[in-house]
Amino acid sequence: VPGRGEHIRLALEEAGAEYTDTAQVQNGVQTVLTHTSDQSTGDAANPPTLAPPILKHGDLVISQTSNILLYLAPLLRLAPAVDDDDDDPNAIYHINALVLTALDGLSNEPHDCHHPIATGLFYDDQKPEASRRAADYISTRLPRFLGYFQRVLTANNAAADAANWLYKGSFTYADLVLFQCLDGVKHAFPKAMASLQTENKYKAVFDLYENVRERPRIKAYLASERRQKYGMGIYRYYPELDIPS
Amino acid sequence: VPGRGEHIRLALEEAGAEYTDTAQVQNGVQTVLTHTSDQSTGDAANPPTLAPPILKHGDLVISQTSNILLYLAPLLRLAPAVDDDDDDPNAIYHINALVLTALDGLSNEPHDCHHPIATGLFYDDQKPEASRRAADYISTRLPRFLGYFQRVLTANNAAADAANWLYKGSFTYADLVLFQCLDGVKHAFPKAMASLQTENKYKAVFDLYENVRERPRIKAYLASERRQKYGMGIYRYYPELDIPS
Repeated sequence: VPGRGEHIRLALEEAGAEYTDTAQVQNGVQTVLTHTSDQSTGDAANPPTLAPPILKHGDLVISQTSNILLYLAPLLRLAPAVDDDDDDPNAIYHINALVLTALDGLSNEPHDCHHPIATGLFYDDQKPEASRRAADYISTRLPRFLGYFQRVLTANNAAADAANWLYKGSFTYADLVLFQCLDGVKHAFPKAMASLQTENKYKAVFDLYENVRERPRIKAYLASERRQKYGMGIYRYYPELDIPS
Repeated sequence: VPGRGEHIRLALEEAGAEYTDTAQVQNGVQTVLTHTSDQSTGDAANPPTLAPPILKHGDLVISQTSNILLYLAPLLRLAPAVDDDDDDPNAIYHINALVLTALDGLSNEPHDCHHPIATGLFYDDQKPEASRRAADYISTRLPRFLGYFQRVLTANNAAADAANWLYKGSFTYADLVLFQCLDGVKHAFPKAMASLQTENKYKAVFDLYENVRERPRIKAYLASERRQKYGMGIYRYYPELDIPS
């Protein structure tokens, strides 16, 4: 299902990079478990990893979504490298902060809406708590994060309109991350998101979503079989957690 | 209170850097609110920030704990710089992953133990849920993360003993982050942590804690008035959430 690893796929797809996705190969799950098993000691160059997503590039094995993107983005030309010899050597720290904030509020928190008590229990074992948490998320947290990204898109824009992209009007992997986060939240809370969209307070955010979706390689990827369907992952659709009709 | 910003303080203290802590100056809270207000647009060089901790260094303003540390650590010589011209140009991606994993399991999750439903509500409004979540955290999640860091410390160690430090046996800011996480969890769940320590399965982790605490500058800092007391922050002591005697 499109979970944390989906952010990595989108970056690779946007860049037209060749990659092997363990979700698409035989024994792929086994490959991942080799890295995350309690018995795994990593290897001479790499400490053990706790959980997916995991990137293997040559001899390098690293984990944590934002960290993998931090490594990949300069290679994929989706962000300037740290200390790139340009006029903005600290760009990556702004972009990484935007990514971490999107993942906090639009990936981790939506996950906790259906699992507020324990990731090791079923949703059915924490339904009343999930209901309380989702209601607070929709009324309080979700508007806070959408409002923040609206502010980022409209701040410091020389033109009267909001910028198309989050960082200085230039497309970076932070835009891909926000797109995927919004796509997931739309899947989980379709009515709440439709309602927030009609408020028009977050127009630049929803425009960014459409602009990313129309990028040729992203559009082709989303229409392909490589894009998986949402299911029992981070973003789950439980109608009872969404707002009423 | 020592919350997310404490990780930044410890890095600055270990390096003997000069810094101004808004917690220690008049109108410091106001300074932070200027950056996080709904009205803040950032400035020409910096997108707005959503929440503390926030680092201002010259004209640069950045947020997100792991991101601030990523920026500071090479300057403070607490990690190699990205693409440092040494034999391990990717060291920072391993260190950053360790930091993100520690913050996930030993900072964010302990916070959610007392606020599983909504950060905007009081603890008293979510006590039964907090009790369920804390019990699961102590029995399932906490041992999982301690076990992971024990594995990191014992993996690939040429000597028979566990390494003192997380990354290749060299001291980095990841060790400071793990120390502070452990200190906070000890504050929140003293009996559970004492019990886990007697199991001896996490000896290298608890040894790391002691080894960081004895570093001269950290020791001096912890004994100083600059080190704040725990209170109503991420790490809270509610006896009813700890294991029984």
